[in-house]
Amino acid sequence: MQNSVVALGGGGGGAKPLQSLAVGVRSSLYTTNPNPNPNRMAAPKWAQKTITLPPQRRGCHLITPKILKEIGQDLSEFKCGLAHLFLHHTSASLTINENYDSDVRDDTETFLNNIVPEGRSAPWKHTLEGPDDMPAHIKSSMFGCALTIPITNGQLNMGTWQGIWLCEHRDSPTARKVVVTLNGI
Amino acid sequence: MQNSVVALGGGGGGAKPLQSLAVGVRSSLYTTNPNPNPNRMAAPKWAQKTITLPPQRRGCHLITPKILKEIGQDLSEFKCGLAHLFLHHTSASLTINENYDSDVRDDTETFLNNIVPEGRSAPWKHTLEGPDDMPAHIKSSMFGCALTIPITNGQLNMGTWQGIWLCEHRDSPTARKVVVTLNGI
Amino acid sequence: MQNSVVALGGGGGGAKPLQSLAVGVRSSLYTTNPNPNPNRMAAPKWAQKTITLPPQRRGCHLITPKILKEIGQDLSEFKCGLAHLFLHHTSASLTINENYDSDVRDDTETFLNNIVPEGRSAPWKHTLEGPDDMPAHIKSSMFGCALTIPITNGQLNMGTWQGIWLCEHRDSPTARKVVVTLNGI
Repeated sequence: MQNSVVALGGGGGGAKPLQSLAVGVRSSLYTTNPNPNPNRMAAPKWAQKTITLPPQRRGCHLITPKILKEIGQDLSEFKCGLAHLFLHHTSASLTINENYDSDVRDDTETFLNNIVPEGRSAPWKHTLEGPDDMPAHIKSSMFGCALTIPITNGQLNMGTWQGIWLCEHRDSPTARKVVVTLNGI
Repeated sequence: MQNSVVALGGGGGGAKPLQSLAVGVRSSLYTTNPNPNPNRMAAPKWAQKTITLPPQRRGCHLITPKILKEIGQDLSEFKCGLAHLFLHHTSASLTINENYDSDVRDDTETFLNNIVPEGRSAPWKHTLEGPDDMPAHIKSSMFGCALTIPITNGQLNMGTWQGIWLCEHRDSPTARKVVVTLNGI
Repeated sequence: MQNSVVALGGGGGGAKPLQSLAVGVRSSLYTTNPNPNPNRMAAPKWAQKTITLPPQRRGCHLITPKILKEIGQDLSEFKCGLAHLFLHHTSASLTINENYDSDVRDDTETFLNNIVPEGRSAPWKHTLEGPDDMPAHIKSSMFGCALTIPITNGQLNMGTWQGIWLCEHRDSPTARKVVVTLNGI
Protein backbone atom coordinates (compact mmCIF):
# COMPACT_ATOMS: atom_id res chain seq x y z
CA MET A 1 0.00 0.00 0.00
CA GLN A 2 2.69 2.46 1.03
CA ASN A 3 4.64 1.67 -2.11
CA SER A 4 1.61 1.99 -4.34
CA VAL A 5 0.85 5.38 -2.87
CA VAL A 6 4.42 6.58 -3.23
CA ALA A 7 4.34 5.44 -6.84
CA LEU A 8 1.09 7.34 -7.28
CA GLY A 9 2.68 10.39 -5.69
CA GLY A 10 5.67 10.22 -8.03
CA GLY A 11 7.96 9.13 -5.23
CA GLY A 12 7.00 12.28 -3.46
CA GLY A 13 5.40 11.24 -0.21
CA GLY A 14 3.54 13.73 1.95
CA ALA A 15 6.57 15.95 2.46
CA LYS A 16 7.48 16.74 -1.15
CA PRO A 17 5.70 19.64 -2.85
CA LEU A 18 2.64 18.36 -4.71
CA GLN A 19 3.59 20.06 -7.97
CA SER A 20 6.40 17.49 -8.23
CA LEU A 21 3.88 14.66 -8.69
CA ALA A 22 4.92 12.40 -11.54
CA VAL A 23 2.82 13.17 -14.58
CA GLY A 24 1.00 10.59 -16.66
CA VAL A 25 2.05 7.75 -14.38
CA ARG A 26 -0.81 5.22 -14.32
CA SER A 27 -1.91 4.90 -10.72
CA SER A 28 -2.41 1.61 -8.98
CA LEU A 29 -6.04 0.75 -8.37
CA TYR A 30 -6.71 0.64 -4.65
CA THR A 31 -9.32 -1.68 -3.24
CA THR A 32 -10.73 -2.53 0.16
CA ASN A 33 -11.51 -6.04 -0.97
CA PRO A 34 -10.58 -8.22 2.03
CA ASN A 35 -7.08 -9.46 1.35
CA PRO A 36 -4.86 -11.95 3.18
CA ASN A 37 -1.96 -9.50 3.02
CA PRO A 38 -2.67 -6.78 5.62
CA ASN A 39 -0.10 -4.49 3.99
CA ARG A 40 -2.34 -4.27 0.94
CA MET A 41 -5.53 -3.49 2.89
CA ALA A 42 -6.94 -0.03 2.31
CA ALA A 43 -9.65 1.13 4.67
CA PRO A 44 -12.12 3.70 3.31
CA LYS A 45 -12.51 6.55 5.79
CA TRP A 46 -14.98 9.42 6.12
CA ALA A 47 -14.60 12.56 8.18
CA GLN A 48 -17.00 15.49 8.32
CA LYS A 49 -17.03 18.71 10.28
CA THR A 50 -18.57 22.17 10.16
CA ILE A 51 -16.09 25.04 10.20
CA THR A 52 -17.02 28.63 11.02
CA LEU A 53 -15.06 31.29 9.13
CA PRO A 54 -14.86 34.68 10.89
CA PRO A 55 -16.68 37.67 9.36
CA GLN A 56 -14.80 39.21 6.41
CA ARG A 57 -15.34 42.43 4.49
CA ARG A 58 -17.04 42.32 1.08
CA GLY A 59 -14.49 40.97 -1.40
CA CYS A 60 -12.39 37.88 -2.16
CA HIS A 61 -10.28 36.33 0.60
CA LEU A 62 -7.64 33.60 0.57
CA ILE A 63 -8.67 31.03 3.19
CA THR A 64 -6.38 28.07 2.45
CA PRO A 65 -4.46 28.48 5.75
CA LYS A 66 -7.69 28.71 7.78
CA ILE A 67 -9.04 25.55 6.12
CA LEU A 68 -5.80 23.60 6.54
CA LYS A 69 -5.61 24.60 10.21
CA GLU A 70 -9.04 23.00 10.69
CA ILE A 71 -8.66 19.83 8.61
CA GLY A 72 -4.89 19.30 8.30
CA GLN A 73 -4.79 16.64 11.01
CA ASP A 74 -7.66 14.65 9.44
CA LEU A 75 -6.16 15.09 5.95
CA SER A 76 -2.92 13.48 7.06
CA GLU A 77 -4.76 10.17 7.53
CA PHE A 78 -5.71 9.94 3.81
CA LYS A 79 -3.31 8.58 1.19
CA CYS A 80 -5.79 9.11 -1.65
CA GLY A 81 -9.22 10.72 -1.60
CA LEU A 82 -11.37 13.79 -2.06
CA ALA A 83 -12.04 16.81 0.15
CA HIS A 84 -15.44 18.50 -0.29
CA LEU A 85 -16.12 22.01 1.00
CA PHE A 86 -19.72 23.23 1.11
CA LEU A 87 -20.62 26.81 2.04
CA HIS A 88 -23.95 27.06 3.92
CA HIS A 89 -24.89 30.44 2.42
CA THR A 90 -26.45 31.99 -0.71
CA SER A 91 -24.77 35.41 -0.61
CA ALA A 92 -21.12 34.30 -0.62
CA SER A 93 -19.13 31.81 -2.69
CA LEU A 94 -16.13 29.50 -2.74
CA THR A 95 -13.71 29.36 -5.65
CA ILE A 96 -10.15 28.28 -6.40
CA ASN A 97 -7.84 30.89 -7.85
CA GLU A 98 -4.43 32.58 -7.57
CA ASN A 99 -2.87 32.33 -4.10
CA TYR A 100 -0.08 34.91 -4.43
CA ASP A 101 -0.90 38.44 -5.61
CA SER A 102 -3.79 39.96 -3.62
CA ASP A 103 -4.45 42.25 -6.62
CA VAL A 104 -6.00 39.22 -8.35
CA ARG A 105 -8.57 39.01 -5.57
CA ASP A 106 -9.26 42.75 -5.72
CA ASP A 107 -9.63 42.65 -9.52
CA THR A 108 -12.01 39.71 -9.28
CA GLU A 109 -14.19 41.69 -6.85
CA THR A 110 -14.06 44.62 -9.30
CA PHE A 111 -15.22 42.31 -12.11
CA LEU A 112 -18.13 40.94 -10.07
CA ASN A 113 -19.27 44.44 -9.11
CA ASN A 114 -19.01 45.66 -12.71
CA ILE A 115 -20.99 42.74 -14.15
CA VAL A 116 -23.84 42.57 -11.61
CA PRO A 117 -25.80 45.84 -11.40
CA GLU A 118 -26.48 47.17 -7.92
CA GLY A 119 -28.57 50.02 -6.54
CA ARG A 120 -30.62 52.40 -8.65
CA SER A 121 -29.40 50.99 -11.97
CA ALA A 122 -30.40 47.44 -11.02
CA PRO A 123 -33.56 45.75 -12.38
CA TRP A 124 -34.09 43.54 -9.30
CA LYS A 125 -37.49 42.78 -7.74
CA HIS A 126 -35.83 41.28 -4.62
CA THR A 127 -34.70 44.41 -2.73
CA LEU A 128 -36.11 43.98 0.81
CA GLU A 129 -32.78 42.75 2.21
CA GLY A 130 -30.78 45.67 0.83
CA PRO A 131 -29.30 46.71 -2.54
CA ASP A 132 -26.31 44.34 -2.11
CA ASP A 133 -28.44 41.23 -1.44
CA MET A 134 -29.72 40.29 -4.90
CA PRO A 135 -26.32 40.92 -6.51
CA ALA A 136 -24.84 38.68 -3.79
CA HIS A 137 -27.20 35.83 -4.72
CA ILE A 138 -26.24 36.11 -8.39
CA LYS A 139 -22.51 36.14 -7.61
CA SER A 140 -22.99 33.09 -5.38
CA SER A 141 -24.36 31.08 -8.31
CA MET A 142 -21.72 32.44 -10.71
CA PHE A 143 -18.82 31.07 -8.61
CA GLY A 144 -20.72 28.41 -6.69
CA CYS A 145 -20.87 27.42 -3.02
CA ALA A 146 -18.90 24.15 -3.16
CA LEU A 147 -15.44 22.81 -4.02
CA THR A 148 -14.07 19.29 -4.42
CA ILE A 149 -10.28 18.95 -4.19
CA PRO A 150 -8.20 15.76 -4.58
CA ILE A 151 -6.25 14.45 -1.60
CA THR A 152 -2.84 12.85 -2.26
CA ASN A 153 -0.45 11.64 0.42
CA GLY A 154 -2.24 13.48 3.22
CA GLN A 155 -2.36 16.84 1.48
CA LEU A 156 -4.78 18.83 -0.71
CA ASN A 157 -3.44 18.16 -4.22
CA MET A 158 -3.70 21.66 -5.73
CA GLY A 159 -1.46 23.40 -8.24
CA THR A 160 1.46 25.57 -7.14
CA TRP A 161 -0.50 28.79 -7.55
CA GLN A 162 -3.94 27.60 -6.51
CA GLY A 163 -5.62 28.70 -3.30
CA ILE A 164 -9.10 28.47 -1.77
CA TRP A 165 -11.01 31.74 -1.79
CA LEU A 166 -14.06 32.78 0.19
CA CYS A 167 -15.86 35.52 -1.72
CA GLU A 168 -18.03 37.62 0.59
CA HIS A 169 -20.73 39.33 -1.48
CA ARG A 170 -22.58 41.19 1.30
CA ASP A 171 -21.62 44.62 2.68
CA SER A 172 -22.11 43.56 6.31
CA PRO A 173 -19.54 40.94 7.30
CA THR A 174 -20.99 37.84 8.95
CA ALA A 175 -19.48 34.52 10.05
CA ARG A 176 -19.78 31.84 7.33
CA LYS A 177 -20.16 28.09 7.86
CA VAL A 178 -18.42 25.52 5.67
CA VAL A 179 -19.20 21.79 5.91
CA VAL A 180 -16.01 19.87 5.09
CA THR A 181 -16.33 16.19 4.11
CA LEU A 182 -13.24 14.02 3.61
CA ASN A 183 -13.47 10.61 1.95
CA GLY A 184 -10.67 8.29 0.90
CA ILE A 185 -8.23 5.63 1.96
CA MET B 1 -20.86 4.60 15.62
CA GLN B 2 -24.22 6.14 16.49
CA ASN B 3 -22.57 8.23 19.16
CA SER B 4 -19.82 9.35 16.84
CA VAL B 5 -22.38 10.41 14.28
CA VAL B 6 -24.49 12.26 16.80
CA ALA B 7 -21.34 14.04 17.97
CA LEU B 8 -20.61 14.92 14.36
CA GLY B 9 -24.16 16.16 13.97
CA GLY B 10 -23.89 18.33 17.06
CA GLY B 11 -26.28 16.12 18.97
CA GLY B 12 -28.81 16.81 16.30
CA GLY B 13 -29.68 13.49 14.77
CA GLY B 14 -31.82 13.28 11.64
CA ALA B 15 -34.73 15.16 13.14
CA LYS B 16 -33.05 18.35 14.33
CA PRO B 17 -32.68 21.20 11.85
CA LEU B 18 -29.28 21.01 10.18
CA GLN B 19 -28.44 24.65 10.88
CA SER B 20 -28.14 23.65 14.53
CA LEU B 21 -25.10 21.48 13.75
CA ALA B 22 -22.35 22.10 16.28
CA VAL B 23 -19.72 24.32 14.71
CA GLY B 24 -16.01 23.66 14.77
CA VAL B 25 -16.45 20.33 16.53
CA ARG B 26 -13.72 18.01 15.25
CA SER B 27 -15.48 15.02 13.72
CA SER B 28 -14.61 11.44 14.46
CA LEU B 29 -12.89 9.67 11.63
CA TYR B 30 -15.04 6.83 10.37
CA THR B 31 -13.46 3.71 8.90
CA THR B 32 -14.61 0.44 7.39
CA ASN B 33 -11.48 -1.29 8.54
CA PRO B 34 -12.70 -4.70 9.75
CA ASN B 35 -13.02 -4.35 13.49
CA PRO B 36 -13.83 -6.83 16.27
CA ASN B 37 -16.35 -4.34 17.69
CA PRO B 38 -19.42 -4.41 15.39
CA ASN B 39 -20.61 -1.11 16.87
CA ARG B 40 -17.65 0.59 15.24
CA MET B 41 -18.15 -0.97 11.78
CA ALA B 42 -19.18 1.45 9.05
CA ALA B 43 -20.22 0.02 5.70
CA PRO B 44 -19.62 2.23 2.66
CA LYS B 45 -22.72 2.34 0.48
CA TRP B 46 -23.40 3.55 -3.05
CA ALA B 47 -26.77 4.30 -4.63
CA GLN B 48 -27.37 5.70 -8.09
CA LYS B 49 -30.51 6.49 -10.05
CA THR B 50 -31.67 8.60 -12.96
CA ILE B 51 -34.48 11.02 -12.19
CA THR B 52 -36.62 12.70 -14.85
CA LEU B 53 -37.77 16.23 -14.05
CA PRO B 54 -40.97 17.33 -15.81
CA PRO B 55 -40.76 20.07 -18.48
CA GLN B 56 -40.53 23.57 -17.00
CA ARG B 57 -40.76 27.01 -18.57
CA ARG B 58 -37.59 29.01 -19.26
CA GLY B 59 -36.33 30.36 -15.93
CA CYS B 60 -35.08 29.22 -12.53
CA HIS B 61 -37.07 26.66 -10.56
CA LEU B 62 -36.76 25.37 -6.99
CA ILE B 63 -36.60 21.56 -7.22
CA THR B 64 -35.50 20.54 -3.69
CA PRO B 65 -38.87 18.88 -2.92
CA LYS B 66 -38.85 16.94 -6.21
CA ILE B 67 -35.30 15.70 -5.55
CA LEU B 68 -36.03 14.73 -1.93
CA LYS B 69 -39.17 12.87 -2.99
CA GLU B 70 -36.98 10.74 -5.29
CA ILE B 71 -33.96 10.15 -3.03
CA GLY B 72 -35.22 10.76 0.52
CA GLN B 73 -35.59 7.07 1.31
CA ASP B 74 -32.07 6.25 0.09
CA LEU B 75 -30.65 9.32 1.90
CA SER B 76 -32.02 8.09 5.21
CA GLU B 77 -29.60 5.15 5.08
CA PHE B 78 -26.51 7.42 5.13
CA LYS B 79 -25.08 8.83 8.37
CA CYS B 80 -22.31 10.70 6.58
CA GLY B 81 -21.62 11.05 2.87
CA LEU B 82 -22.04 13.03 -0.33
CA ALA B 83 -24.92 13.37 -2.78
CA HIS B 84 -23.98 14.14 -6.40
CA LEU B 85 -26.52 15.47 -8.91
CA PHE B 86 -25.57 15.49 -12.58
CA LEU B 87 -27.80 17.07 -15.23
CA HIS B 88 -27.64 15.25 -18.59
CA HIS B 89 -28.08 18.40 -20.69
CA THR B 90 -26.11 21.34 -22.10
CA SER B 91 -28.89 23.95 -22.30
CA ALA B 92 -29.98 23.93 -18.65
CA SER B 93 -28.11 24.12 -15.35
CA LEU B 94 -28.20 23.18 -11.68
CA THR B 95 -27.29 25.64 -8.95
CA ILE B 96 -27.85 26.16 -5.22
CA ASN B 97 -29.43 29.44 -4.17
CA GLU B 98 -32.18 31.09 -2.09
CA ASN B 99 -35.11 28.77 -1.35
CA TYR B 100 -37.67 31.31 -0.10
CA ASP B 101 -38.49 34.38 -2.22
CA SER B 102 -39.31 33.42 -5.82
CA ASP B 103 -38.26 36.95 -6.85
CA VAL B 104 -34.65 35.81 -6.40
CA ARG B 105 -35.21 33.19 -9.08
CA ASP B 106 -36.89 35.69 -11.40
CA ASP B 107 -34.09 38.24 -10.89
CA THR B 108 -31.45 35.57 -11.60
CA GLU B 109 -33.19 34.76 -14.89
CA THR B 110 -33.24 38.50 -15.67
CA PHE B 111 -29.49 38.69 -15.00
CA LEU B 112 -28.72 35.73 -17.27
CA ASN B 113 -30.81 37.20 -20.09
CA ASN B 114 -29.16 40.62 -19.72
CA ILE B 115 -25.64 39.24 -19.74
CA VAL B 116 -25.90 36.75 -22.61
CA PRO B 117 -26.96 38.43 -25.87
CA GLU B 118 -29.76 36.72 -27.80
CA GLY B 119 -31.32 37.25 -31.22
CA ARG B 120 -30.29 39.97 -33.68
CA SER B 121 -27.82 41.58 -31.27
CA ALA B 122 -25.96 38.31 -30.66
CA PRO B 123 -22.60 37.46 -32.28
CA TRP B 124 -23.18 33.69 -32.35
CA LYS B 125 -22.22 31.39 -35.23
CA HIS B 126 -24.25 28.51 -33.73
CA THR B 127 -27.83 29.51 -34.61
CA LEU B 128 -29.32 26.45 -36.35
CA GLU B 129 -31.14 25.30 -33.19
CA GLY B 130 -32.81 28.67 -32.60
CA PRO B 131 -31.82 32.05 -31.11
CA ASP B 132 -32.19 30.75 -27.54
CA ASP B 133 -29.87 27.73 -28.02
CA MET B 134 -26.39 29.26 -27.97
CA PRO B 135 -27.26 31.53 -25.02
CA ALA B 136 -28.55 28.40 -23.24
CA HIS B 137 -25.19 26.63 -23.74
CA ILE B 138 -23.31 29.61 -22.29
CA LYS B 139 -25.63 29.84 -19.27
CA SER B 140 -25.19 26.09 -18.70
CA SER B 141 -21.42 26.52 -18.33
CA MET B 142 -21.82 29.67 -16.21
CA PHE B 143 -23.84 27.87 -13.51
CA GLY B 144 -22.75 24.30 -14.29
CA CYS B 145 -24.60 21.01 -14.70
CA ALA B 146 -23.59 19.29 -11.44
CA LEU B 147 -23.88 19.70 -7.67
CA THR B 148 -22.28 17.87 -4.76
CA ILE B 149 -24.01 18.24 -1.38
CA PRO B 150 -22.93 16.79 1.97
CA ILE B 151 -25.12 14.19 3.66
CA THR B 152 -25.37 14.26 7.47
CA ASN B 153 -27.64 12.03 9.56
CA GLY B 154 -29.73 10.94 6.58
CA GLN B 155 -30.39 14.43 5.24
CA LEU B 156 -28.89 16.83 2.69
CA ASN B 157 -26.76 19.12 4.85
CA MET B 158 -27.60 22.51 3.30
CA GLY B 159 -27.94 25.93 4.91
CA THR B 160 -31.28 27.22 6.18
CA TRP B 161 -31.91 29.28 3.06
CA GLN B 162 -30.32 27.04 0.45
CA GLY B 163 -32.32 25.17 -2.15
CA ILE B 164 -31.58 23.24 -5.35
CA TRP B 165 -32.51 25.09 -8.53
CA LEU B 166 -33.00 23.76 -12.04
CA CYS B 167 -32.41 26.61 -14.47
CA GLU B 168 -34.14 25.96 -17.80
CA HIS B 169 -32.43 28.03 -20.50
CA ARG B 170 -34.49 26.97 -23.55
CA ASP B 171 -37.81 28.49 -24.63
CA SER B 172 -39.44 25.12 -25.29
CA PRO B 173 -39.85 23.16 -22.05
CA THR B 174 -38.53 19.60 -22.17
CA ALA B 175 -38.12 16.88 -19.54
CA ARG B 176 -34.64 16.92 -17.99
CA LYS B 177 -32.69 13.94 -16.65
CA VAL B 178 -30.58 14.08 -13.49
CA VAL B 179 -28.27 11.23 -12.45
CA VAL B 180 -28.12 11.14 -8.64
CA THR B 181 -25.24 9.28 -6.97
CA LEU B 182 -25.13 8.80 -3.21
CA ASN B 183 -21.97 7.61 -1.45
CA GLY B 184 -21.29 7.35 2.25
CA ILE B 185 -21.63 5.28 5.38
CA MET C 1 -23.97 -7.67 -7.69
CA GLN C 2 -24.02 -7.99 -11.47
CA ASN C 3 -27.80 -8.13 -11.39
CA SER C 4 -28.04 -5.12 -9.10
CA VAL C 5 -25.83 -3.16 -11.43
CA VAL C 6 -27.74 -4.18 -14.53
CA ALA C 7 -30.93 -3.11 -12.79
CA LEU C 8 -29.25 0.19 -11.94
CA GLY C 9 -28.22 0.59 -15.56
CA GLY C 10 -31.73 -0.10 -16.80
CA GLY C 11 -30.67 -3.43 -18.26
CA GLY C 12 -28.08 -1.57 -20.24
CA GLY C 13 -24.71 -2.89 -19.17
CA GLY C 14 -21.51 -1.22 -20.27
CA ALA C 15 -22.16 -1.72 -23.98
CA LYS C 16 -25.53 -0.01 -24.30
CA PRO C 17 -25.57 3.75 -24.87
CA LEU C 18 -25.92 5.53 -21.53
CA GLN C 19 -28.77 7.72 -22.71
CA SER C 20 -30.89 4.53 -22.77
CA LEU C 21 -30.63 4.19 -18.99
CA ALA C 22 -34.00 3.43 -17.47
CA VAL C 23 -35.42 6.58 -15.94
CA GLY C 24 -36.79 6.86 -12.45
CA VAL C 25 -35.93 3.28 -11.59
CA ARG C 26 -35.06 3.17 -7.90
CA SER C 27 -31.50 1.89 -7.67
CA SER C 28 -30.41 -0.90 -5.41
CA LEU C 29 -28.30 0.26 -2.49
CA TYR C 30 -24.83 -1.20 -2.74
CA THR C 31 -22.82 -1.97 0.37
CA THR C 32 -19.44 -3.36 1.22
CA ASN C 33 -20.74 -4.76 4.45
CA PRO C 34 -19.00 -8.15 4.78
CA ASN C 35 -21.44 -10.71 3.43
CA PRO C 36 -21.41 -14.50 3.30
CA ASN C 37 -22.42 -14.42 -0.38
CA PRO C 38 -19.32 -13.34 -2.38
CA ASN C 39 -21.51 -12.46 -5.38
CA ARG C 40 -23.03 -9.66 -3.32
CA MET C 41 -19.68 -8.23 -2.17
CA ALA C 42 -18.83 -4.81 -3.55
CA ALA C 43 -15.29 -3.60 -3.05
CA PRO C 44 -14.80 0.17 -2.92
CA LYS C 45 -11.91 1.18 -5.20
CA TRP C 46 -9.89 4.34 -5.60
CA ALA C 47 -7.66 5.28 -8.52
CA GLN C 48 -5.81 8.56 -8.99
CA LYS C 49 -3.46 9.84 -11.64
CA THR C 50 -2.13 13.10 -13.02
CA ILE C 51 -2.70 13.63 -16.74
CA THR C 52 -0.82 16.21 -18.82
CA LEU C 53 -2.83 17.79 -21.63
CA PRO C 54 -0.74 19.13 -24.53
CA PRO C 55 -0.59 22.92 -25.08
CA GLN C 56 -3.67 24.28 -26.85
CA ARG C 57 -4.44 27.67 -28.36
CA ARG C 58 -6.58 30.15 -26.42
CA GLY C 59 -10.20 28.99 -26.68
CA CYS C 60 -12.46 26.07 -25.77
CA HIS C 61 -11.40 22.53 -26.68
CA LEU C 62 -13.24 19.20 -26.53
CA ILE C 63 -11.01 16.81 -24.56
CA THR C 64 -13.34 13.86 -23.87
CA PRO C 65 -11.33 11.51 -26.12
CA LYS C 66 -8.01 12.52 -24.51
CA ILE C 67 -9.45 11.92 -21.03
CA LEU C 68 -11.00 8.57 -21.94
CA LYS C 69 -7.75 7.42 -23.52
CA GLU C 70 -6.02 8.05 -20.18
CA ILE C 71 -8.64 6.67 -17.78
CA GLY C 72 -10.81 4.31 -19.88
CA GLN C 73 -9.08 1.19 -18.62
CA ASP C 74 -9.45 2.20 -14.96
CA LEU C 75 -13.08 3.29 -15.57
CA SER C 76 -13.98 -0.15 -16.85
CA GLU C 77 -13.36 -1.57 -13.37
CA PHE C 78 -16.13 0.55 -11.80
CA LYS C 79 -19.80 -0.50 -11.92
CA CYS C 80 -20.97 2.59 -10.02
CA GLY C 81 -19.00 5.60 -8.85
CA LEU C 82 -17.75 9.12 -9.48
CA ALA C 83 -14.92 10.51 -11.59
CA HIS C 84 -13.35 13.77 -10.40
CA LEU C 85 -11.19 15.93 -12.69
CA PHE C 86 -9.16 18.73 -11.13
CA LEU C 87 -7.21 21.22 -13.23
CA HIS C 88 -3.98 22.39 -11.55
CA HIS C 89 -4.13 25.92 -12.99
CA THR C 90 -5.76 29.31 -12.38
CA SER C 91 -5.78 30.64 -15.96
CA ALA C 92 -7.74 27.84 -17.65
CA SER C 93 -10.96 26.01 -16.81
CA LEU C 94 -12.88 22.76 -17.21
CA THR C 95 -16.56 22.68 -18.15
CA ILE C 96 -19.11 20.28 -19.64
CA ASN C 97 -20.91 21.44 -22.74
CA GLU C 98 -21.95 20.54 -26.30
CA ASN C 99 -19.76 17.86 -27.88
CA TYR C 100 -20.83 18.18 -31.53
CA ASP C 101 -20.74 21.59 -33.25
CA SER C 102 -17.37 23.33 -32.77
CA ASP C 103 -19.16 26.66 -33.32
CA VAL C 104 -20.52 26.30 -29.77
CA ARG C 105 -16.96 26.29 -28.44
CA ASP C 106 -16.01 29.29 -30.60
CA ASP C 107 -19.11 31.22 -29.51
CA THR C 108 -18.38 30.45 -25.85
CA GLU C 109 -14.86 31.87 -26.27
CA THR C 110 -16.43 34.95 -27.92
CA PHE C 111 -18.75 35.36 -24.93
CA LEU C 112 -15.91 35.12 -22.42
CA ASN C 113 -13.84 37.68 -24.31
CA ASN C 114 -16.80 40.06 -24.59
CA ILE C 115 -17.69 39.86 -20.90
CA VAL C 116 -14.20 40.16 -19.38
CA PRO C 117 -12.43 43.40 -20.39
CA GLU C 118 -8.84 43.03 -21.60
CA GLY C 119 -6.09 45.49 -22.47
CA ARG C 120 -6.44 49.27 -22.36
CA SER C 121 -10.17 49.17 -21.51
CA ALA C 122 -9.59 46.88 -18.50
CA PRO C 123 -9.61 48.15 -14.89
CA TRP C 124 -7.16 45.50 -13.60
CA LYS C 125 -4.38 46.17 -11.10
CA HIS C 126 -2.79 42.75 -11.78
CA THR C 127 -1.08 43.33 -15.15
CA LEU C 128 2.54 42.18 -14.63
CA GLU C 129 1.90 38.81 -16.29
CA GLY C 130 0.39 40.31 -19.42
CA PRO C 131 -3.00 41.77 -20.47
CA ASP C 132 -4.51 38.29 -20.91
CA ASP C 133 -3.58 37.05 -17.40
CA MET C 134 -6.12 38.77 -15.15
CA PRO C 135 -8.99 38.05 -17.57
CA ALA C 136 -7.81 34.41 -17.57
CA HIS C 137 -8.06 34.24 -13.76
CA ILE C 138 -11.61 35.62 -13.84
CA LYS C 139 -12.71 33.17 -16.56
CA SER C 140 -11.19 30.32 -14.54
CA SER C 141 -13.45 31.11 -11.59
CA MET C 142 -16.49 31.67 -13.84
CA PHE C 143 -16.34 28.13 -15.28
CA GLY C 144 -14.31 26.48 -12.51
CA CYS C 145 -11.31 24.15 -12.46
CA ALA C 146 -13.02 20.90 -11.47
CA LEU C 147 -15.67 18.45 -12.68
CA THR C 148 -17.37 15.48 -11.04
CA ILE C 149 -19.05 13.00 -13.40
CA PRO C 150 -21.01 9.86 -12.49
CA ILE C 151 -19.64 6.46 -13.49
CA THR C 152 -22.14 3.78 -14.52
CA ASN C 153 -21.21 0.34 -15.83
CA GLY C 154 -17.60 1.26 -16.51
CA GLN C 155 -18.36 4.44 -18.44
CA LEU C 156 -18.69 8.18 -17.76
CA ASN C 157 -22.47 8.63 -17.47
CA MET C 158 -22.92 11.85 -19.47
CA GLY C 159 -25.80 12.94 -21.69
CA THR C 160 -25.78 12.25 -25.44
CA TRP C 161 -24.55 15.74 -26.30
CA GLN C 162 -22.27 16.38 -23.33
CA GLY C 163 -18.50 16.55 -23.63
CA ILE C 164 -15.60 17.65 -21.44
CA TRP C 165 -14.04 20.96 -22.44
CA LEU C 166 -10.69 22.43 -21.52
CA CYS C 167 -10.92 26.22 -21.86
CA GLU C 168 -7.48 27.78 -22.33
CA HIS C 169 -7.64 31.43 -21.29
CA ARG C 170 -4.00 32.44 -21.92
CA ASP C 171 -2.56 33.57 -25.27
CA SER C 172 0.56 31.42 -24.94
CA PRO C 173 -0.35 27.71 -25.04
CA THR C 174 1.12 25.65 -22.20
CA ALA C 175 0.68 22.04 -21.11
CA ARG C 176 -2.02 21.68 -18.46
CA LYS C 177 -2.16 19.10 -15.66
CA VAL C 178 -5.38 17.40 -14.56
CA VAL C 179 -5.57 15.20 -11.46
CA VAL C 180 -8.16 12.48 -12.08
CA THR C 181 -9.61 10.63 -9.07
CA LEU C 182 -11.93 7.67 -9.53
CA ASN C 183 -13.96 6.25 -6.63
CA GLY C 184 -16.64 3.60 -6.66
CA ILE C 185 -17.41 -0.10 -6.66
